[in-house]
Amino acid sequence: MDALSFAVIGLGVSTVDIVARVEHLPTPDDVQRALDMTTQGGGPVATAMVTLARLGARAAMIDALGDDWRGGQIREGFTREGVNVAHLKTRPGHTSAMSCILVEQASGARSIVYAPGTAPDITPAELPVDAIASARFLHLNGRHWEAGLEAIRIARSAGVQVSFDGGAGRYRPELDDLIPQTDICIVARDFAEQHTHETDIRAAAGALLRMGPRLVAITDGARGSWVLARDGRFFHQPAYLFPSAVDTTGCGDSYHGAFLFGLLRGLTLEKTAALASAVAALNSQAIGGRGGLPTYAQVVAFLDEQAESI
Amino acid sequence: MDALSFAVIGLGVSTVDIVARVEHLPTPDDVQRALDMTTQGGGPVATAMVTLARLGARAAMIDALGDDWRGGQIREGFTREGVNVAHLKTRPGHTSAMSCILVEQASGARSIVYAPGTAPDITPAELPVDAIASARFLHLNGRHWEAGLEAIRIARSAGVQVSFDGGAGRYRPELDDLIPQTDICIVARDFAEQHTHETDIRAAAGALLRMGPRLVAITDGARGSWVLARDGRFFHQPAYLFPSAVDTTGCGDSYHGAFLFGLLRGLTLEKTAALASAVAALNSQAIGGRGGLPTYAQVVAFLDEQAESI
Repeated sequence: MDALSFAVIGLGVSTVDIVARVEHLPTPDDVQRALDMTTQGGGPVATAMVTLARLGARAAMIDALGDDWRGGQIREGFTREGVNVAHLKTRPGHTSAMSCILVEQASGARSIVYAPGTAPDITPAELPVDAIASARFLHLNGRHWEAGLEAIRIARSAGVQVSFDGGAGRYRPELDDLIPQTDICIVARDFAEQHTHETDIRAAAGALLRMGPRLVAITDGARGSWVLARDGRFFHQPAYLFPSAVDTTGCGDSYHGAFLFGLLRGLTLEKTAALASAVAALNSQAIGGRGGLPTYAQVVAFLDEQAESI
Repeated sequence: MDALSFAVIGLGVSTVDIVARVEHLPTPDDVQRALDMTTQGGGPVATAMVTLARLGARAAMIDALGDDWRGGQIREGFTREGVNVAHLKTRPGHTSAMSCILVEQASGARSIVYAPGTAPDITPAELPVDAIASARFLHLNGRHWEAGLEAIRIARSAGVQVSFDGGAGRYRPELDDLIPQTDICIVARDFAEQHTHETDIRAAAGALLRMGPRLVAITDGARGSWVLARDGRFFHQPAYLFPSAVDTTGCGDSYHGAFLFGLLRGLTLEKTAALASAVAALNSQAIGGRGGLPTYAQVVAFLDEQAESI
């Protein structure tokens, strides 16, 4: 690997999130003071890349941003976290994606209002071929569709593993064509059910595995995750539950990033799943999609504590 | 007036507003795409200064901002509108004020979640004495309390008129001490009632006038405004009503700015109130506190149309 290669390169849509913790979700014509209001980067693949960087891996993001303040904030967030931004394109005159996320303090109920940016997708011709071909993993979720298919082609012909994020509420039929071309396929339970038409977790994971991936995981929030490998290993990883989650935004995204980190470190599958679950749990303990992301030392310390308490 | 003097100098708190137009106000755990989402500057005095600049007057703003992206956006908004920013202080390590404003499309219902910034108030010693003393009007609403009292002292001893904005929902007892020191006192109906304990508009206006101002106006949204002058003139200015307001954010703020503009131009009180009412109505026809602010030519054209249609 040369100086410009990355352990993981992500292709997806980055957002800037305004996250407000409130006493109650908005009602007509009320004015309320937020308990706090922060600005953070977001987006599934983007947050996975930040997770990897926080843990200590070299990660880069491919995306197209507008040249607005939102794009500036997104770029600054990556830079601050050490995610490489050399492959972020800026589209003059366009806007970047943004969300307002309101989190009700007592219940933890969350409401998201989002506005997609207007910046046109990354084109296949814009892909950084060398950066993709020299990575260990390409991570994507089906955004920048045409470029995604081309990026997978580049990755597979270079022996780079393809990691897919099928998030909750994000299933769409065209993704059926993408999953067979992936190596690591981690999807939310509703995504797995819609894609496989199986309601049994083991059956759904098996159906996904038969489509092509060497490793499948299905995530189900507080009910934990299930991992199925090509060699037949199947296990459940419980979620690490705190008395209360402050904000579950980004938990799935960070699970993906941490899972890839475990694979990069050569951890066993079981330890990889535990690491991913612990990172997601720690991330739920602070506001925003990236608020609670731990360093590797922090997550190791957390896992040590858990073992002691068992 | 030298090159650095302004027609109006404002002292208040500036915000950056994220304004999202939505199908429905947030409910627990929903995710919705905004019809649109814009970023605008806001804050009562700040928007009055932008109104003045848009109409063609020289306006400046005194405020303390954080050195965060919010402060950057606030400053950029003033600069884009031609409001002088020489007297904006930047407080390193502090945040600026921000609001998320959700506007339900069908009903026009609005919900505001705001977060005050952490930047400490402007101190009396930080006030730009020459700029205040050479202005025609000082406009304020009681924010930066100590500096406000000192700014009024500077203004009055220099013969600069003091204009006060008592916005809806913003009455607080300490403001009782401030109103006697103002010349132009324009307050929302609920503010007038709480301050004077009078529910009759004419009586409330009279009570306010007896406290010291030479000119009082009471605003009441779609019911229009009432003006009472020292010489006893009292009249009602109906609101210019469109079939529907897109967003009434900033209507009161822009009424203040336009009212001062009318006085600066030497218009009669009646024409000044009509101008202010027209500017507020036009501002309600676009999203955000400043979205629909007209130029002077635009508001004159609008008033001409109204006369034709009468």
